[in-house]
Amino acid sequence: MKHYKIAILAGDGIGPEITQEAVKVLKVIEERNDVTFELLPAAFGACAYFESGSAFPHQTKAICDEADAILKGPIGLSHEDSKRIPIDEQPERGALLPLRRRYNTYANFRPVSLPKSLAHFSPLKAEVIGEGIDLVIVRELVGGLYFGEKEMGVNDAGLRYVRETLEYDEAQIYQIMQQAFKLASKRRKLLHNIHKSNVLKSSVLWNEVMEEVAKEYPDVQVVNMLVDAAATALCLKPTQFDVMVMENMFGDILSDQGGGILGSLGLMPSACIGPDKAYYEPSHGSAPDIAGKNIANPYSMIGSVAMMLENSFDMEAEAKNVWAAMQGVFADGYSTADLSKPGSGVTMISTVEFGDKVVEKL
Amino acid sequence: MKHYKIAILAGDGIGPEITQEAVKVLKVIEERNDVTFELLPAAFGACAYFESGSAFPHQTKAICDEADAILKGPIGLSHEDSKRIPIDEQPERGALLPLRRRYNTYANFRPVSLPKSLAHFSPLKAEVIGEGIDLVIVRELVGGLYFGEKEMGVNDAGLRYVRETLEYDEAQIYQIMQQAFKLASKRRKLLHNIHKSNVLKSSVLWNEVMEEVAKEYPDVQVVNMLVDAAATALCLKPTQFDVMVMENMFGDILSDQGGGILGSLGLMPSACIGPDKAYYEPSHGSAPDIAGKNIANPYSMIGSVAMMLENSFDMEAEAKNVWAAMQGVFADGYSTADLSKPGSGVTMISTVEFGDKVVEKL
Ligand SMILES: CC(C)[C@H](C(=O)O)[C@@H](O)C(=O)O
Ligand SMILES: CC(C)[C@H](C(=O)O)[C@@H](O)C(=O)O
Repeated sequence: MKHYKIAILAGDGIGPEITQEAVKVLKVIEERNDVTFELLPAAFGACAYFESGSAFPHQTKAICDEADAILKGPIGLSHEDSKRIPIDEQPERGALLPLRRRYNTYANFRPVSLPKSLAHFSPLKAEVIGEGIDLVIVRELVGGLYFGEKEMGVNDAGLRYVRETLEYDEAQIYQIMQQAFKLASKRRKLLHNIHKSNVLKSSVLWNEVMEEVAKEYPDVQVVNMLVDAAATALCLKPTQFDVMVMENMFGDILSDQGGGILGSLGLMPSACIGPDKAYYEPSHGSAPDIAGKNIANPYSMIGSVAMMLENSFDMEAEAKNVWAAMQGVFADGYSTADLSKPGSGVTMISTVEFGDKVVEKL
Repeated sequence: MKHYKIAILAGDGIGPEITQEAVKVLKVIEERNDVTFELLPAAFGACAYFESGSAFPHQTKAICDEADAILKGPIGLSHEDSKRIPIDEQPERGALLPLRRRYNTYANFRPVSLPKSLAHFSPLKAEVIGEGIDLVIVRELVGGLYFGEKEMGVNDAGLRYVRETLEYDEAQIYQIMQQAFKLASKRRKLLHNIHKSNVLKSSVLWNEVMEEVAKEYPDVQVVNMLVDAAATALCLKPTQFDVMVMENMFGDILSDQGGGILGSLGLMPSACIGPDKAYYEPSHGSAPDIAGKNIANPYSMIGSVAMMLENSFDMEAEAKNVWAAMQGVFADGYSTADLSKPGSGVTMISTVEFGDKVVEKL
């Protein structure tokens, strides 16, 4: 009997609601497999800050340290509400980035996937979706502008200024490229390397290291694409992509564009993998406007569980079952109010009902 | 009789073909108005580099210095070909960025506009386009990562590294905000301020200055939106936007996403405005793959002429006529091979024929 400890950071906004549904799925998996999950809930995000003065309290750190994997809900407040917390304590700077840094989760996998049968969710025409979108964005997650030095002050001319640095060294690029090439080898053997080498020197080094790593994977075809061209192409012909690799900030923007072409960020789970620990989270925010209404789709959170099963617990078959169960619920004509408009022909169900139906399918 | 000097930088790839059509339009405007245009062709881009060893030769600088406005075609080579030019001489670093810096063209206006009647160009569903997309991206063009210090080397651990800086001071932010608010005042009085203040300190200063400038424009409604959320929203509901303001790199990515939602970057002209001089250019690259084939649509180049007429020569009415003429050609059922697929019901015409038809309409 395997035993795994899972830290559960439900987060802010819709976090607790969708986490609850993900936990239901974990229970089903546990019941029918030779495995026990010890769930360790811990405070994280704005809620933790208001409770204890820290968005990532010591106790949560201790729980995460001992956990085999971490399931993390979305965090953050609305633009206005976030002014209630000093800038450096805000949940993104005070909890999320420190979490990423603590476990050096440099490899962020964000599947952007929409089977043909769900093409109606997308703002794109059916002919653009074709046989379905199925790509993965591999985003470097602990480097670049996110973690470079930052300086704010007043310059000699008496003007307020700010300076922040985008830094990478070859080791950082090497390790994310290894992840991207490995994934590409297992999939369609097509890797789009996204860069901005006509302006950024960091992209020049990025491309250099990419070419070195490419030699180890002669069967993977590499297509180099400027980040701006990629933003165009993701709208015009998303089906051309299989695996895309890019630095941190580009990955932030393009993966949310990915949510856009699917029809909702609610369809975007993700895995954040470091050398010794991984955590799993939806790619979206905490959606304070719909929090507590029982209408948020738990897909991204349950999908994050699927990614955890596959990556952290080697339960690939069960991971596939979870994906299939969710697609099945949609295929049966059910959806939630955040994903579909009333009158679009679907039967509208709540967050909890969606979770229940996934559990039934399983 | 007014007399204007216009520097004509035809550029690389499809540049010369589409510039030729734009020049035809300038001639028509000249003939029927109390104005003369003195066209001053000058070498710029990769072609200039191969001719003279400089992508932005002294002579071209002199011509631009004396011109009242500059019309610039796309520049650059394919990923592979660009390796024939040393990194710092490549046309982007060796010509385009120096051009922007020389004339301090800090305000880049990129209309993302598609009337309902042209919705078929877009990869988005007709219901997403609704009554049409009509937004303008106001992009800061001479700051940020593009112009910050860059350092490449080997660090103490013996690893190659790169460090580049993203810098802004309040004066830079102030001037672009003034442009954005002014434009918003003249339009729907709705300004989306695009930022990433949950991670970037530069966005914190950006938002601070934005709030200060907002006080001067009490009738403009400001909506603050994270850049990643904006990338989602541009796909899901582009019609919610009117004017969007953002820093340089965000503007690069989101404006090309804008081209994506229109159906082609070929529909993206732009104006780059400095305190004393402005230049006008398509937002797209030089498309070496279709160069010389007489199939590239000159819309973005002729649209750039329209923006020049309005901004540099105060010929607003004629600018409107140029836009209307282009829409008219599309409305008559004509298109070019880069914009439309054969069999899509349009009559396919060449670059030159498109230009001719625009001239006829005028
Ligand atoms: C919340 C924010 C700091 C975060 C990021 O920018 O990485 C989020 O947008 C994401 O993509 O995971
Ligand atoms: C060619 C390149 C340097 C340029 C930029 O990044 O600004 C282009 O992509 C643009 O958007 O005008």
